[in-house]
Amino acid sequence: GYAKIDLHRELRQGIPEVIFGSGKTPEQIIGIASAMQARGGENILITRLCTESAKIVGEQIPLTYDPMSKIGIVGRKSEITASGTIAVATGGTSDMPVAEEAALTAEVLGNKVVRLYDVGVAGLHRLLSKLDVLMDAQVVIAVAGMEGALASVVGGLVDCPVIAVPTSIGYGSNFNGLSALLSMLNSCASGVSVVNIDNGFGAGYLASMINHIGGNR
Amino acid sequence: GYAKIDLHRELRQGIPEVIFGSGKTPEQIIGIASAMQARGGENILITRLCTESAKIVGEQIPLTYDPMSKIGIVGRKSEITASGTIAVATGGTSDMPVAEEAALTAEVLGNKVVRLYDVGVAGLHRLLSKLDVLMDAQVVIAVAGMEGALASVVGGLVDCPVIAVPTSIGYGSNFNGLSALLSMLNSCASGVSVVNIDNGFGAGYLASMINHIGGNR
Amino acid sequence: GYAKIDLHRELRQGIPEVIFGSGKTPEQIIGIASAMQARGGENILITRLCTESAKIVGEQIPLTYDPMSKIGIVGRKSEITASGTIAVATGGTSDMPVAEEAALTAEVLGNKVVRLYDVGVAGLHRLLSKLDVLMDAQVVIAVAGMEGALASVVGGLVDCPVIAVPTSIGYGSNFNGLSALLSMLNSCASGVSVVNIDNGFGAGYLASMINHIGGNR
Amino acid sequence: GYAKIDLHRELRQGIPEVIFGSGKTPEQIIGIASAMQARGGENILITRLCTESAKIVGEQIPLTYDPMSKIGIVGRKSEITASGTIAVATGGTSDMPVAEEAALTAEVLGNKVVRLYDVGVAGLHRLLSKLDVLMDAQVVIAVAGMEGALASVVGGLVDCPVIAVPTSIGYGSNFNGLSALLSMLNSCASGVSVVNIDNGFGAGYLASMINHIGGNR
Amino acid sequence: GYAKIDLHRELRQGIPEVIFGSGKTPEQIIGIASAMQARGGENILITRLCTESAKIVGEQIPLTYDPMSKIGIVGRKSEITASGTIAVATGGTSDMPVAEEAALTAEVLGNKVVRLYDVGVAGLHRLLSKLDVLMDAQVVIAVAGMEGALASVVGGLVDCPVIAVPTSIGYGSNFNGLSALLSMLNSCASGVSVVNIDNGFGAGYLASMINHIGGNR
Amino acid sequence: GYAKIDLHRELRQGIPEVIFGSGKTPEQIIGIASAMQARGGENILITRLCTESAKIVGEQIPLTYDPMSKIGIVGRKSEITASGTIAVATGGTSDMPVAEEAALTAEVLGNKVVRLYDVGVAGLHRLLSKLDVLMDAQVVIAVAGMEGALASVVGGLVDCPVIAVPTSIGYGSNFNGLSALLSMLNSCASGVSVVNIDNGFGAGYLASMINHIGGNR
Amino acid sequence: GYAKIDLHRELRQGIPEVIFGSGKTPEQIIGIASAMQARGGENILITRLCTESAKIVGEQIPLTYDPMSKIGIVGRKSEITASGTIAVATGGTSDMPVAEEAALTAEVLGNKVVRLYDVGVAGLHRLLSKLDVLMDAQVVIAVAGMEGALASVVGGLVDCPVIAVPTSIGYGSNFNGLSALLSMLNSCASGVSVVNIDNGFGAGYLASMINHIGGNR
Amino acid sequence: GYAKIDLHRELRQGIPEVIFGSGKTPEQIIGIASAMQARGGENILITRLCTESAKIVGEQIPLTYDPMSKIGIVGRKSEITASGTIAVATGGTSDMPVAEEAALTAEVLGNKVVRLYDVGVAGLHRLLSKLDVLMDAQVVIAVAGMEGALASVVGGLVDCPVIAVPTSIGYGSNFNGLSALLSMLNSCASGVSVVNIDNGFGAGYLASMINHIGGNR
Ligand SMILES: Nc1ncnc2c1ncn2[C@@H]1O[C@H](COP(=O)(O)O)[C@@H](O)[C@H]1O
Ligand SMILES: Nc1ncnc2c1ncn2[C@@H]1O[C@H](COP(=O)(O)O)[C@@H](O)[C@H]1O
Ligand SMILES: Nc1ncnc2c1ncn2[C@@H]1O[C@H](COP(=O)(O)O)[C@@H](O)[C@H]1O
Ligand SMILES: Nc1ncnc2c1ncn2[C@@H]1O[C@H](COP(=O)(O)O)[C@@H](O)[C@H]1O
Ligand SMILES: [Mg+2]
Ligand SMILES: [Mg+2]
Ligand SMILES: [Mg+2]
Ligand SMILES: [Mg+2]
Ligand SMILES: [Mg+2]
Ligand SMILES: [Mg+2]
Ligand SMILES: [Mg+2]
Ligand SMILES: [Mg+2]
Repeated sequence: GYAKIDLHRELRQGIPEVIFGSGKTPEQIIGIASAMQARGGENILITRLCTESAKIVGEQIPLTYDPMSKIGIVGRKSEITASGTIAVATGGTSDMPVAEEAALTAEVLGNKVVRLYDVGVAGLHRLLSKLDVLMDAQVVIAVAGMEGALASVVGGLVDCPVIAVPTSIGYGSNFNGLSALLSMLNSCASGVSVVNIDNGFGAGYLASMINHIGGNR
Repeated sequence: GYAKIDLHRELRQGIPEVIFGSGKTPEQIIGIASAMQARGGENILITRLCTESAKIVGEQIPLTYDPMSKIGIVGRKSEITASGTIAVATGGTSDMPVAEEAALTAEVLGNKVVRLYDVGVAGLHRLLSKLDVLMDAQVVIAVAGMEGALASVVGGLVDCPVIAVPTSIGYGSNFNGLSALLSMLNSCASGVSVVNIDNGFGAGYLASMINHIGGNR
Repeated sequence: GYAKIDLHRELRQGIPEVIFGSGKTPEQIIGIASAMQARGGENILITRLCTESAKIVGEQIPLTYDPMSKIGIVGRKSEITASGTIAVATGGTSDMPVAEEAALTAEVLGNKVVRLYDVGVAGLHRLLSKLDVLMDAQVVIAVAGMEGALASVVGGLVDCPVIAVPTSIGYGSNFNGLSALLSMLNSCASGVSVVNIDNGFGAGYLASMINHIGGNR
Repeated sequence: GYAKIDLHRELRQGIPEVIFGSGKTPEQIIGIASAMQARGGENILITRLCTESAKIVGEQIPLTYDPMSKIGIVGRKSEITASGTIAVATGGTSDMPVAEEAALTAEVLGNKVVRLYDVGVAGLHRLLSKLDVLMDAQVVIAVAGMEGALASVVGGLVDCPVIAVPTSIGYGSNFNGLSALLSMLNSCASGVSVVNIDNGFGAGYLASMINHIGGNR
Repeated sequence: GYAKIDLHRELRQGIPEVIFGSGKTPEQIIGIASAMQARGGENILITRLCTESAKIVGEQIPLTYDPMSKIGIVGRKSEITASGTIAVATGGTSDMPVAEEAALTAEVLGNKVVRLYDVGVAGLHRLLSKLDVLMDAQVVIAVAGMEGALASVVGGLVDCPVIAVPTSIGYGSNFNGLSALLSMLNSCASGVSVVNIDNGFGAGYLASMINHIGGNR
Repeated sequence: GYAKIDLHRELRQGIPEVIFGSGKTPEQIIGIASAMQARGGENILITRLCTESAKIVGEQIPLTYDPMSKIGIVGRKSEITASGTIAVATGGTSDMPVAEEAALTAEVLGNKVVRLYDVGVAGLHRLLSKLDVLMDAQVVIAVAGMEGALASVVGGLVDCPVIAVPTSIGYGSNFNGLSALLSMLNSCASGVSVVNIDNGFGAGYLASMINHIGGNR
Repeated sequence: GYAKIDLHRELRQGIPEVIFGSGKTPEQIIGIASAMQARGGENILITRLCTESAKIVGEQIPLTYDPMSKIGIVGRKSEITASGTIAVATGGTSDMPVAEEAALTAEVLGNKVVRLYDVGVAGLHRLLSKLDVLMDAQVVIAVAGMEGALASVVGGLVDCPVIAVPTSIGYGSNFNGLSALLSMLNSCASGVSVVNIDNGFGAGYLASMINHIGGNR
Repeated sequence: GYAKIDLHRELRQGIPEVIFGSGKTPEQIIGIASAMQARGGENILITRLCTESAKIVGEQIPLTYDPMSKIGIVGRKSEITASGTIAVATGGTSDMPVAEEAALTAEVLGNKVVRLYDVGVAGLHRLLSKLDVLMDAQVVIAVAGMEGALASVVGGLVDCPVIAVPTSIGYGSNFNGLSALLSMLNSCASGVSVVNIDNGFGAGYLASMINHIGGNR
């Protein structure tokens, strides 16, 4: 009648550890990252790290920082471990920061990523001209704001899992991403699931999980 | 310093008069329709008329009734007066009652109407196979529930005005049509405007107005 | 400068075709199913089919009907084609109809499914006593209403993709599933994505896609 | 069974190209505009261009900038191509920036525009004193915040299409334009359709489409 | 340091007592009304009394019942006690039940009431043709659903207090009266205040209070 | 069949004219105020005038400015013209800016005003100790944020009209005044009506209207 | 590094077990209750049990059923085990079903309960006349719909914990209990916490927990 | 027939008085605190006091200030008066400011407090490793943002009252704390009640009330 729960499984070998940088001081981030390194973590991903904090952190720890996605990487390992490809598509250019958060997360986690940016449904020809790339992917991440229609259109074209990421891009009745979120949740295409508004990290992490199910390189 | 407002302009020759049937008893509808006829109205459109009421009304006034759109017509005149064509497209078959409300309204008002039903974006090939019909239209009415992506996709393909009609088809986070409504209001395609959820009549009426600007037959 | 879109790819061999039964008359369903069979479809899934309709449909077409999930199956093939297992967990017993919609969909699509029902977080010991089953799954579907905490707790325990299905079970500030939906979208566990409220079918379909990436039996 | 989609139709002769300036750096805008010019674009509209960006862009490309509407125009052609008139009406003076976005867009697209500002329904005499101007228009754009009643009142007076633009002007239960938006969507006047909150550009673009249906000058 | 609160002021002479009938059984209503009569209440107003309950109550207590407003009156006294007039205006005929709840309440409380029904803003000439009646009122009650613009238009025309009553008449983005409610709360006309959706009783009661401030007959 | 609408009734003798200062530049305000003065306006109320603008305006036009309520007055006339009293009550001290907007508006319009601040319902003894003042008022303005219960409690104590002003004071599930707004709209006390969140001006204007119905000094 | 979780702690001696009856068939309820009895449960509380189910259940298991609260009790033990008193107050008579769910739950759990019904804040004298009873309580449960002001007023009067239960009683902008819920969450009185709309059971259970902290009889 | 209400009970001996610092100037705070001291208050708690204000206040009155919780204390008395313990748990480190507001409030009010920070449900082992501490508490305060699942999990583990504090930590569909708030209100665990988003003070105050019911040290 008793379950044994492993209370010390905090460190899983090989998988990078993640720090959610938003709302943490550079000092707190340095502290957490150092502790992770001390515990043997070779590979740390810091999301939502603003440029100012990145500068301070980088003075103490060797850090690769990407200002568009606001991702910082400590000790990046770049070998690709999964055999499939993750396609990251966006509706517009304004969705790129979120898309890059997803793409970089997936790359750090050992995935090959192809980017299809600014292929929104109001100009369908742009999306259709990349159909072969989409069809080849193991997983697609569809990143879009405003009406979020990209997820449904992509979901109708491909037969693999589509992870929809609504963004807060838009104004007025967009209500900070609500329109894209509801649109994606109500997608009439099968195989589409949704993460939180602007949650590129979550999409990249999940896409990596799914892609690794498909086997290693 | 004074404006002269015409207080008796209630009757405009030629344009059918409209009764919003919802929430009115058959007796009230017969009363209003009879008064309209007495004033010279030759052509009366009754929307949101349920089957039971239609039966009772039809016993007193010669009525053409369409159960899908719930539209009743007294004294329908079928000549087409506008030179252009109105295309009515739907995402799914469940959107057809709203689409028919739009289509019949437009027909009664003297328009040629083509119907493109069940061409939702999750199966893009169905929509693309009708591209020529869409391209030929003077106005397109895009009727869709769930994520309402049809309006954006159509708006990106055609160069004419697109009237988007969100429907209440869906469940869960559809919130009775809210997802399609917000989606359509946030369309990234130019030339798209929106009417109330399930308001097929309003879309048909506006489409007729625009189509008649394009000249008469 | 031109893309060639296959307009006749409607029939994909082996994958069952799906009819969304809600809002269709038995006659419409029989018509659609017959057309699918005529086209060579051997395996048809009808979701949201109420008991009354199922009775009428079953008189015309050989139908296996499950009243809890409201799923009807025409010509079910039961061989398991994927090597992994899908675990379907629910918070309470009231979530079972949605869970069964997911489970049956996955089974029809060729997956081995294990059910863990009524393991909600208010009685954590029930969930923990099934930890081994959860840990063995290739994908977990977490179905919960009210506060929807199950998805986060499961997501924190397992390392595979978790598909969260909010249900409309609850009352008051549940607002027809909104509380569980928001809860799941905001999950602090990685690897969790969300489908529409009560969308068991969508979860089962996506789980099957992911499970088949893991290889065939 | 195949549709041929033109993948290179990006440049349509004569129609100005549009850049949505919001969230783009001056450098990005200069880059996009230069590329458009290189491709033969003679006429570029930049919306939501803040004063600071306009200054920097204007140092590199000859730019006409209007600070109220935040519109920048590269290579404006001023001939009027449509025979009808577009009337732009506002409820208050605070709605003028949105109204000017609509009016300038329409002018750049070759339309004659008349402005009726500050004619809100709380002072009906101001609106009624301009009745003749409204009646002469081919399309009316009704721009209003707060309760958004202008659209219904105008829609009841004129027989042409009314494009309603809710603005975010107001406070409290205005909820950033929601009150005007809902009001306009629920208009009891026929011929009214709605674009997104503060979307003057969209209204001007659609009005131009409709006006050009009415024939050229 | 102590306040003396009168705990027995339940019965105020002359003013009718009110029973909110909704959700009470006929038996409960008979019980409460009888107790009121026993205490000396000569004049009892029962609101939201459905036809079935009214029949049962009327068999035990002499009751005047109005099926449109669902108001029942026990022992109505009809003398008019206030010198001014209350005008009750509605946007459409569907708003009449709420308007009658207001009008009858005001009449039972001793006010002269004039009714201006179906004068909605989409047909402004109907409202303007009654301008003299509106101008003569001491208080106006503006009852409207859908976009609720009537309150602003009336408020802009008259100089007396306007009590706005949003109704739940409408569909789609009306959201059960929310659109009219928000519209009325955001009215740009001065002198307008708002009561709950469909609260004709509250409007009639308040109008009577204000009208009696203006002096007795 | 024609109504004659007075198009030049903009200037009503004796009643102050009002400028809504929010979103207007000092220059615009000076321009409008000067035009009003040129037309004979002796008495101008400027609401929502920030301290910086007030300083600039005051250098050009003789202005009395109150920084708490953000009201500026040009040419204030202080005689009291109505015989009754308006009581302005607030729940807390944070509601005072809105209350002062109401109180000053009423004073400028010729009313005697008594202030009862910080008498919120969580300390009922404070409210009850002022019961006599409340009971003597012709109209009460109840200003409260957070749960907005003050309006109901006051409405249950007095027999005169209560104008409820929800404020945006609060945090979290206050949602910028929504909680107080809904609370006040649902008041179970009779005689309560509601204006927009933070709309002290509207409450003061309406209270003055009602108070003047009660006769002049 | 391991935690030992007791997986069989389902039965806690003395405390009644609870079945949430809503959405369960009589057969399911009989099954669960019988299993509980077989395990030694002497005391079972069934909430949200409709009259029809109660009849069927009562034919198989000895059941005490209260139709107002919809509570069924199997094997009620009535000794009072806590020394303090729980006061249950309601704003109106319509709140009584929820209040009785709370009161009966508390009684079954061994508490002395006093009821103060229909003491809503619109008639403050009714509440104040029971001040002594409120002051004597160890915990107060405040049950109210509409504006939910009761919780704040009670919270301001007493010094003990107040459990606020919003009810769905009301109409229009009540939005099924949202107004009372937000009101109670924003209470300016200290010591107030809130449970779900209409959750009388939860309030009664929590009140019993707190009351028992105060010591046994 | 009269109730005697004590109008001077403002000062209760021993219990600290509380000033809500948010929105008050340092001068106002000094004024209120001095008045309290003059009346004999020995112990004053100032919440939501920003660092800048704290500096100014501290120059005039001896003040202990905690920058994380933004609490200032004048004349802190540190004896523990209640015999039980209050456990304060948080989901993440970002919830700590709210948790400290609760913890410090409880400490000032004479309670022993244990802190369990960053034990969120996505890493269940962290929570389970502290089970003994939780089990020993008289009251638990569960502070969490994002999906707020902590309250349900804790509520299912302990048998004492759980006060749930949703925080505004999160982004996107968190909607400033709405997701955690709804989650906590819908908790399927018994004994859980909820205070306003970020209301650490309210939780600490209520926990102290309940803890003192359990007897003094
Ligand atoms: N951008 C992001 N959005 C949502 N979750 C994130 C994000 N970045 C990191 N996380 C999650 O936050 C956890 C770390 O949070 P923390 O302990 O606050 O640093 C990681 O394990 C991730 O699951
Ligand atoms: N103010 C605006 N609001 C909405 N859409 C706009 C606006 N301005 C431009 N657009 C649209 O945005 C498109 C260009 O977007 P982008 O490629 O991001 O510059 C144009 O084709 C227009 O359809
Ligand atoms: N239709 C209505 N809407 C809102 N409040 C009402 C209505 N009818 C009556 N009331 C109020 O409800 C009170 C009586 O409620 P009750 O004691 O439940 O019968 C009256 O004093 C009125 O203030
Ligand atoms: N009216 C109610 N509202 C909320 N929760 C309840 C209610 N009645 C019972 N419960 C909870 O529901 C649990 C039993 O649920 P179930 O296993 O579905 O019967 C009990 O342990 C209670 O915590
Ligand atoms: Mg697909
Ligand atoms: Mg287009
Ligand atoms: Mg996980
Ligand atoms: Mg019109
Ligand atoms: Mg007026
Ligand atoms: Mg009163
Ligand atoms: Mg208290
Ligand atoms: Mg518990």
